[in-house]
Amino acid sequence: MAGESRATVMLEEAQSIIQAAQQKAQEIGQPMNIAVVDNGRQLKAFARMEDAWLGSIDIAIDKAFTSASFLLSTQDLGEMAQPGQPLFGINTTNDGRIVIFGGGVLLMRGDEVAGAVGVSGGTPDQDHEVAEAGAAAFS
Amino acid sequence: MAGESRATVMLEEAQSIIQAAQQKAQEIGQPMNIAVVDNGRQLKAFARMEDAWLGSIDIAIDKAFTSASFLLSTQDLGEMAQPGQPLFGINTTNDGRIVIFGGGVLLMRGDEVAGAVGVSGGTPDQDHEVAEAGAAAFS
Amino acid sequence: MAGESRATVMLEEAQSIIQAAQQKAQEIGQPMNIAVVDNGRQLKAFARMEDAWLGSIDIAIDKAFTSASFLLSTQDLGEMAQPGQPLFGINTTNDGRIVIFGGGVLLMRGDEVAGAVGVSGGTPDQDHEVAEAGAAAFS
Amino acid sequence: MAGESRATVMLEEAQSIIQAAQQKAQEIGQPMNIAVVDNGRQLKAFARMEDAWLGSIDIAIDKAFTSASFLLSTQDLGEMAQPGQPLFGINTTNDGRIVIFGGGVLLMRGDEVAGAVGVSGGTPDQDHEVAEAGAAAFS
Repeated sequence: MAGESRATVMLEEAQSIIQAAQQKAQEIGQPMNIAVVDNGRQLKAFARMEDAWLGSIDIAIDKAFTSASFLLSTQDLGEMAQPGQPLFGINTTNDGRIVIFGGGVLLMRGDEVAGAVGVSGGTPDQDHEVAEAGAAAFS
Repeated sequence: MAGESRATVMLEEAQSIIQAAQQKAQEIGQPMNIAVVDNGRQLKAFARMEDAWLGSIDIAIDKAFTSASFLLSTQDLGEMAQPGQPLFGINTTNDGRIVIFGGGVLLMRGDEVAGAVGVSGGTPDQDHEVAEAGAAAFS
Repeated sequence: MAGESRATVMLEEAQSIIQAAQQKAQEIGQPMNIAVVDNGRQLKAFARMEDAWLGSIDIAIDKAFTSASFLLSTQDLGEMAQPGQPLFGINTTNDGRIVIFGGGVLLMRGDEVAGAVGVSGGTPDQDHEVAEAGAAAFS
Repeated sequence: MAGESRATVMLEEAQSIIQAAQQKAQEIGQPMNIAVVDNGRQLKAFARMEDAWLGSIDIAIDKAFTSASFLLSTQDLGEMAQPGQPLFGINTTNDGRIVIFGGGVLLMRGDEVAGAVGVSGGTPDQDHEVAEAGAAAFS
């Protein structure tokens, strides 16, 4: 099991997270890209809903990557990455894959990190809400 | 028809858009790079006018790519991507191909997205004006 | 419908393709990465089975990308890309995303291209077999 | 005129080259991607015909880039890049943009290099034929 602790998210769980996120996206009427990564920040599952923005494929995956990279939500990271704040400029690291606005949320199994979910397709607030709905289906 | 919906821009249309944009660029006296992408944000046609900046080849293509990625103008995206605004940092996503200043404009066929035009070679305001002239020749 | 013709694969279809491919992978006892792209060669859905190789995440996605890029299987492309054959060297094009061994298969809706499925995690022959099983669930 | 000697191809010429290449492509019944670069190997004009392979966008541009980079056709370069030949491996240089099969042809103005045309969408032999038709419209 390369890159995976025993706590890491399983495929069936990842697919349930995506399903829950899709449902929330449908409720708010905004089609989304939804990605789940394991606790090694590697892609586990992905879904693009009909009519979701093409530019959000990479962003959804990279939001999950970002959350699993630094063990926080991309919403929280975004506050620290504004001009004058301690992590200003972090978004160009890791080959430019670090996303600094909402939509990436950690997946926890008890007190162990299991992975992360990343959502993109609406406003960062909408994305965060949909990611939270996905994460809620996990824990 | 790989990557092309029925609404997507055709080559002859793309060439007319470029011609109209060139004409506007000549009027304002600023040589431009002009790109048209389809609704899958893939390059359909491109032209670089004599003496247009070499650094603007990629920017023109990526402005069109950006508009087709998020279904808005790069001018509008730019406002949302300022420090403290919701999408600050979005320009490093999608392999750094997201442009957050004016010059990328959507092409609509009725209420369906047909693609986008991207212009670079002057100020963002000039680029936007030239892109609008190109788009006006389409719809 | 950005980047999607009416023929393009829908999310629910993509998820069925992945499920059928997973089933075949379980039958042959080899965990796989499975990707589906639309007919604009953009990611639609993805799944990584437990214990599947991490190096195969990108390969699965890029096999699907390759099939949708040139409208053939990566197995067929591989034959044309051998030393002395017409397309030797094609694998370094498109930012190195072209894969020249089996596992990428086209998805056809009647005589229109709907997208492609890419599988990686076993031998190229196993990958191709699993991709074919996925594609069979579509048409 | 950054990157451009007086011999370099002009936009109107590049557009005529593309038109001649399109005509040849229609004659042989194979839709093509056609690119023209200047003698600084930078993109001058591009056109993708309806139904041309998406994977050939980059290849057409990079064939022109390759010809202008080494001042020969990509067909000739391909022979030198086979295993055991002097330039084996050259295709991974220049960020992987070097193409080693037919379809890239130099544009000469008298005995000075004016740029190059690159074509992709059929067999390398077809691509070369269409590129030659484009180049013939120039000199």
